[in-house]
Amino acid sequence: MIEVNQRSYKLPQQPTVVVCVDGCEPDYLGQAVAAGQMPWLKRALQEGTGLVADCVVPTFTNPNNISIVTGVPPSVHGICGNYLFDTATGTEVMMNDVKWLRAPTLLAALAAAGKKLAVITAKDKLRKLLGHGMVGGICFSSEKADQATLAENGIENVPALVGKPVPSVYSADLSEFVFAAGVKLAEAKRADVMYLSTTDYIQHKHAPGTEGANAFYRMMDGYLGQLDAMGWVIALTADHGMNAKVGMDGKPDVIYLQDWFDAELGAGLARVILPITDPYVVHHGALGSYATVYLPESASLAAVSTSLRAVQGIETVLTRSAAAERFELPADRIGDLVVVSERFTVLGTAASKHDLSGLDAPLRSHGGVSEQRVPLIVNRKLGLPAGARRLRNFDAFDLALNFAQ
Amino acid sequence: MIEVNQRSYKLPQQPTVVVCVDGCEPDYLGQAVAAGQMPWLKRALQEGTGLVADCVVPTFTNPNNISIVTGVPPSVHGICGNYLFDTATGTEVMMNDVKWLRAPTLLAALAAAGKKLAVITAKDKLRKLLGHGMVGGICFSSEKADQATLAENGIENVPALVGKPVPSVYSADLSEFVFAAGVKLAEAKRADVMYLSTTDYIQHKHAPGTEGANAFYRMMDGYLGQLDAMGWVIALTADHGMNAKVGMDGKPDVIYLQDWFDAELGAGLARVILPITDPYVVHHGALGSYATVYLPESASLAAVSTSLRAVQGIETVLTRSAAAERFELPADRIGDLVVVSERFTVLGTAASKHDLSGLDAPLRSHGGVSEQRVPLIVNRKLGLPAGARRLRNFDAFDLALNFAQ
Repeated sequence: MIEVNQRSYKLPQQPTVVVCVDGCEPDYLGQAVAAGQMPWLKRALQEGTGLVADCVVPTFTNPNNISIVTGVPPSVHGICGNYLFDTATGTEVMMNDVKWLRAPTLLAALAAAGKKLAVITAKDKLRKLLGHGMVGGICFSSEKADQATLAENGIENVPALVGKPVPSVYSADLSEFVFAAGVKLAEAKRADVMYLSTTDYIQHKHAPGTEGANAFYRMMDGYLGQLDAMGWVIALTADHGMNAKVGMDGKPDVIYLQDWFDAELGAGLARVILPITDPYVVHHGALGSYATVYLPESASLAAVSTSLRAVQGIETVLTRSAAAERFELPADRIGDLVVVSERFTVLGTAASKHDLSGLDAPLRSHGGVSEQRVPLIVNRKLGLPAGARRLRNFDAFDLALNFAQ
Repeated sequence: MIEVNQRSYKLPQQPTVVVCVDGCEPDYLGQAVAAGQMPWLKRALQEGTGLVADCVVPTFTNPNNISIVTGVPPSVHGICGNYLFDTATGTEVMMNDVKWLRAPTLLAALAAAGKKLAVITAKDKLRKLLGHGMVGGICFSSEKADQATLAENGIENVPALVGKPVPSVYSADLSEFVFAAGVKLAEAKRADVMYLSTTDYIQHKHAPGTEGANAFYRMMDGYLGQLDAMGWVIALTADHGMNAKVGMDGKPDVIYLQDWFDAELGAGLARVILPITDPYVVHHGALGSYATVYLPESASLAAVSTSLRAVQGIETVLTRSAAAERFELPADRIGDLVVVSERFTVLGTAASKHDLSGLDAPLRSHGGVSEQRVPLIVNRKLGLPAGARRLRNFDAFDLALNFAQ
């Protein structure tokens, strides 16, 4: 047994992989299974366990991946977005640096306990956070697979091993490379615990049940079937869901919050932060359903919250302390208000600051409570005790290591 | 001016049509416009007014159609489902009979004021309710278009007039016939106020943005464009939205409430009513996201509500009085509890009572709060007073007659 962040885990007796499918709204799976595109998953659901769990709000990539590998919410691990306002320096920065991480990962603990770890992410932005503190083991991204070195990544010549070139960062291939590499490492017995994390390029463009989505899930199903055949325990979850975010005119349904606060309080007095922001915004224009706002001292929290709640498309407005409690967030890293928009609506800063020219399909995005439902599937029966327990995506390792039979 | 159910309406100065598109989740329009399938709607949204409104819960066909033509919620007009438990006779019956209607319709009032009315519905089940009290005017269904007589329907030889045969009750053609007939009546100047109401056969099978859905909306757009070109004021709304209702295995995600109550209280003591039930259940298997339950006197409302709320997939459990207040329902026509399930989950009675063999596509259905968002579009600018007003689909005639410019 090892203990990480006050949770206990059995050391794996069988090779075990946790797969985080970026943007995997459960309906993607339901529609693909119904269309006969996922024979492995259909069998896994019959012979194993199919649950629906809640991910972390904000329903973004970094907070949820870090929750999955630490087993705890952002209030403990500290990663509450892809992007934040650093009050210490007064600057807006990416949250990719390990200095933001406040908790050790289970991956590092398993490596320290002598297990052979392999961590593969689609985009490089997550790699350093996920691999933090992991001594030994393999950790690389598809995006920079050709730059992996033994010293830095525990592996080299990855494209040759996988038999595929390094894919474009905006492609389904970037995720396929993750699965293909995972299967190769499993075949070579170079890992006994893996964490595979994909990118949501396809989910941002294609709705559940469409051919574009089904092709992705058919691809994924083939690789997971290969891991299953090699005896791997597979736990599949997601960082967040995904919804269409357009109005009836087919254009993004956006509430530009910076413009709204500028009109309400005066120009530039409030600072709106969109924690979805990352270096790769072409497919969502940095538009998601969650924002946090720093207000001037002169503003009345109660008055401005009441006004904002009346705006059509706004779902929830919470003060810092209420948001920190409800969504289990680090209070010192969020603004005076947390704002969540409804299922079909996204939040922007100022209209002039969003470049939507790269959107070549009707916007689909995430960030809100409407994208909190995610799959939590294990290809084994689970000996879960009876009784109501709210399942989270960050229970994936707990289920796979402690309950898989 | 005329007054109906304590709301005032201007008599129309221009020909005016209210279109109720059955199951028209707003995203159907957004995806079709984005795909270039609805040129008329794209222009109407630019030159007119595109709003999103709330329909009536339960989000079913009969309550909402009757709300639209009476301008009031079910607490006033009395129609709170397609189906109910008649406590007076102890039997479960369809709610198609006019004896259930407690309010006059605006359609009857406009006819009495000398206007030429035409009311066309896809399915015949609604025709008598919609046409109740209307003296003169035209009122028929696509389904029984060939049986229309001057005495009963104010029109005869409808298939010859429309130039189409009577369509199958399970087809997109049933709705197309409604639009085609409306255009023919407009061309012949046989109506100056119309109410057109379609069926959700397509929406139960096809998700927004898919070719099956886009073809329907392309067809509709063509007919509405013809009415617009003839100078008609067009108000477009819906009776309810529509969502996928399947689990990750692609099968309907059902909570069988009668089975649940039988296990909780003893067999047959509670009576679960599904007000979605109608004579045409092939495409949804009578599975929707709303149910009402009559309990034995021995049952504790509080205890059973608390247990039921803990079931995954249940969104809301309300007592009769709370449901009557929140959803504006006639308290004497609902059970001791009203139960609403979440976006992806439906409610059944007993598993043995639902024949799902007719489902040839992954289930899509409605009934819950998750299907309350509907379009409210007028092809004119509206002189609406500023300020927050919760818009409802049953404001469609108010907007078209009182505010269209």
